[in-house]
Amino acid sequence: MYIGVIGQSQCNEEIASIAEEVGELIARNGAVMICGGMGGVMEAASRGARSAGGVTIGILPGFSREEANSYISISIPTGLGPARNLIIVRASDVLIAISGGYGTLTEIAFALHFGKPVIGLYTWGLNREGKDLQDIMIVRTPREAVSKAMELIKDNRQ
Amino acid sequence: MYIGVIGQSQCNEEIASIAEEVGELIARNGAVMICGGMGGVMEAASRGARSAGGVTIGILPGFSREEANSYISISIPTGLGPARNLIIVRASDVLIAISGGYGTLTEIAFALHFGKPVIGLYTWGLNREGKDLQDIMIVRTPREAVSKAMELIKDNRQ
Amino acid sequence: MYIGVIGQSQCNEEIASIAEEVGELIARNGAVMICGGMGGVMEAASRGARSAGGVTIGILPGFSREEANSYISISIPTGLGPARNLIIVRASDVLIAISGGYGTLTEIAFALHFGKPVIGLYTWGLNREGKDLQDIMIVRTPREAVSKAMELIKDNRQ
Amino acid sequence: MYIGVIGQSQCNEEIASIAEEVGELIARNGAVMICGGMGGVMEAASRGARSAGGVTIGILPGFSREEANSYISISIPTGLGPARNLIIVRASDVLIAISGGYGTLTEIAFALHFGKPVIGLYTWGLNREGKDLQDIMIVRTPREAVSKAMELIKDNRQ
Repeated sequence: MYIGVIGQSQCNEEIASIAEEVGELIARNGAVMICGGMGGVMEAASRGARSAGGVTIGILPGFSREEANSYISISIPTGLGPARNLIIVRASDVLIAISGGYGTLTEIAFALHFGKPVIGLYTWGLNREGKDLQDIMIVRTPREAVSKAMELIKDNRQ
Repeated sequence: MYIGVIGQSQCNEEIASIAEEVGELIARNGAVMICGGMGGVMEAASRGARSAGGVTIGILPGFSREEANSYISISIPTGLGPARNLIIVRASDVLIAISGGYGTLTEIAFALHFGKPVIGLYTWGLNREGKDLQDIMIVRTPREAVSKAMELIKDNRQ
Repeated sequence: MYIGVIGQSQCNEEIASIAEEVGELIARNGAVMICGGMGGVMEAASRGARSAGGVTIGILPGFSREEANSYISISIPTGLGPARNLIIVRASDVLIAISGGYGTLTEIAFALHFGKPVIGLYTWGLNREGKDLQDIMIVRTPREAVSKAMELIKDNRQ
Repeated sequence: MYIGVIGQSQCNEEIASIAEEVGELIARNGAVMICGGMGGVMEAASRGARSAGGVTIGILPGFSREEANSYISISIPTGLGPARNLIIVRASDVLIAISGGYGTLTEIAFALHFGKPVIGLYTWGLNREGKDLQDIMIVRTPREAVSKAMELIKDNRQ
């Protein structure tokens, strides 16, 4: 079970604390956490996952594994810049978006394009011609996000 | 001047007719048209551009240039699948999104991520935490779309 | 007909003069020339092709079309760094390697991997376990290189 | 410490047995093994690494982690086809090439292009204008290959 956590490389304390709890719960559920390996939401979620004994994978944009945050277990430098966002999506069974900027939006869009579920915490919303869409599953707490993610992975296996 | 036209590989006649007019106007303004090279919106826009003597570039997802629609002047097979969407965005100075599905949304998101303007005709809208955003410049006609695009390119050069 | 010309972004005058003649002959044969769009062999070949009225496509490693040499008709910035080498190969029907460093070797290797013919002028040679291989078709003059390329494209169409 | 093992997805028993020993020695030295995650050399090396309690990462060409061989600890589907070869190289500190076809040659070429050491067992050789090059460090046994790899990683850290 691989759960992707996506969000910006800089964030305020409230968002960091949400991300940290998401990471911790992913690890407690025995899933591997995938992210972009950098700071902000990625670092907070990685710290949470490692604090609960989990494994964290960082798919890095640059050339060097030294750019990974200190809570990454396995770092994969790609040298692809933002094109690495697509690999984060491919490598995740389900994604949890926490707040996030345009980079996160590219990941949400690829996930929907590939038919992978996206769970959202304080993140982007989409509409078409003024009509709101429910493509992103909006939740309000880390607990809801991770239990929804686990449920979707299990449903998908049956 | 390179204008990207993005939209789905299948579309209804109304959208096709809008795309065709957009392509024609791009060519009349002397700009090169970039697209994904496939059917639907891409084919209609390419047909319009060629009818006005323009040059059309198709950045293809697959391995063979035979998958290009018949109105592509220069075809670039990439073999990268949907990762080629990012190249369409990189290669365009400004993008016009016409309707579009999730693939188009990946292109819109990359364009915003890279700071490239996106002009929208009957396409996606974005919100954050329920608040509508104006990141995509919404217009109502092909004429408005292309004149806005030309204006942005000229502003950017000054 | 799309012929790729691959080689280093810096080269001596002798190699530049060979590349220029290759470009010129490609254009005289009515083929489009594809290259990495930068200096050295790429610039010399582009200059030759343009001098004979040809079309040159530059698949650029960076973000900006301003990095293209001045003889590129159509520039495609990819932002992919050396991963763009693969697109040069995908987009070419046959490749002519002129001298070249490790970057050129990545292109030769991808071409052979994809079953595309590689014609070599003063370039890499390959062996396996000490046994020389003839995978790269070695020629000695620009004229031989381009006539071999045209022949291969025509054979492939029949 | 991340050591990449590259080679073909099909191989004979002799090569498989060499690959298996390479994998085992990588694990005994406490390094993480990176590979393309498929059959042949990749599977044999992964089996060896896991038998010695090591961690194996498979950077997959396709969309699904089900294509990974059964000895992969962490699978990363990329959907990039052979473009994923470049990521295997980026993610490795040093590479060991075992026999191998054109795909392996693309990896060797990228490694040399990025300045990463390549150690070769029964693999490709390179020459320029008929002059043999020593760019690939040729060794004759798995033991030599892995101790050379460990030495290079340690030198690089000092």
